[in-house]
Amino acid sequence: MARWQPDASGRLQQAALTLYGERGFDSTTVAEIAERAGLTKRTFFRYFADKREVLFYGAEALEELLVTEVGAAPESAGPLDAVAAALDAAASAFEERREFAARRQRIIAANPELQERELIKLAKLAGAVADALRRRGVDDPAAILTAEAAITVFRVAFERWVDPANRKGLQRLIGESLEELRAVTAAA
Amino acid sequence: MARWQPDASGRLQQAALTLYGERGFDSTTVAEIAERAGLTKRTFFRYFADKREVLFYGAEALEELLVTEVGAAPESAGPLDAVAAALDAAASAFEERREFAARRQRIIAANPELQERELIKLAKLAGAVADALRRRGVDDPAAILTAEAAITVFRVAFERWVDPANRKGLQRLIGESLEELRAVTAAA
Repeated sequence: MARWQPDASGRLQQAALTLYGERGFDSTTVAEIAERAGLTKRTFFRYFADKREVLFYGAEALEELLVTEVGAAPESAGPLDAVAAALDAAASAFEERREFAARRQRIIAANPELQERELIKLAKLAGAVADALRRRGVDDPAAILTAEAAITVFRVAFERWVDPANRKGLQRLIGESLEELRAVTAAA
Repeated sequence: MARWQPDASGRLQQAALTLYGERGFDSTTVAEIAERAGLTKRTFFRYFADKREVLFYGAEALEELLVTEVGAAPESAGPLDAVAAALDAAASAFEERREFAARRQRIIAANPELQERELIKLAKLAGAVADALRRRGVDDPAAILTAEAAITVFRVAFERWVDPANRKGLQRLIGESLEELRAVTAAA
């Protein structure tokens, strides 16, 4: 009988991160993750396609949020401003989860296969943002250039944010990275 | 007895592209590529690790060229100008190979595994360009933002260049994409 498991997904994610950190991604099995979370393998597969996907659980929600926010930006906003507003909204959804994000980042950084997965997810995200810009009437190549630049800004800010020495918030770091991008592209 | 094979690598690349176009990447074997090129499997493996790598043969040379050119830019050049000069030099090395590049692009676009491979190669390229900028004294995040933006500019220009309807040269399209990037990032 399937019982309702309070926050089963969150418990599985926490258990997976802990095990990946302790014994490495490759040496951890789905059975071990489920056991550590006090759940069954069957419950694991109700939430995640495989042990890799546990690390990318938020990707779809992030894409949906960015796409919605790009669409909701004022008509007068230029493409980069529309995406900047969307990144700002996304950042606030992350702020509470810094420690989780930092552990996740370390696990991905230690595994080429996961890095590749991350690249693919980010490329998909950039594609979705570019589509959202096109729906705002932004032509190519401006749409794809803006979307890709914005995702790079986000990624760079994210990596600075999860650095143990960092004390700045993600929103502020996104703002700084965006200013830095404007500065390097403005220099003649 | 291994005989010297004039342009064995080029013949293998041409044969691979033709077969991938005719019957698809997945359905083509190394033996078939070698046979089509009039060479042996053993010769194939002297040049390429596997049938995927045939499509990415130029990646290392491109990286070396970009890194060298970024390093050779005048000391007074800003980071984006240094990379722009490097892209310009790389573009001229491609101009003769448009038809080859277009066929290659169609094969990659039809295969998710190859698209992932392309993403990984481009990420590696951006990393190498960022390192070259750091050696010029450019700090992070400017170095990584500039490098990633430049690779995006290159990719966007490249895709426009291989479009059958396109009549512009790659250098010109890179210049246009760069101007477009400056325009979207300058808009306040």
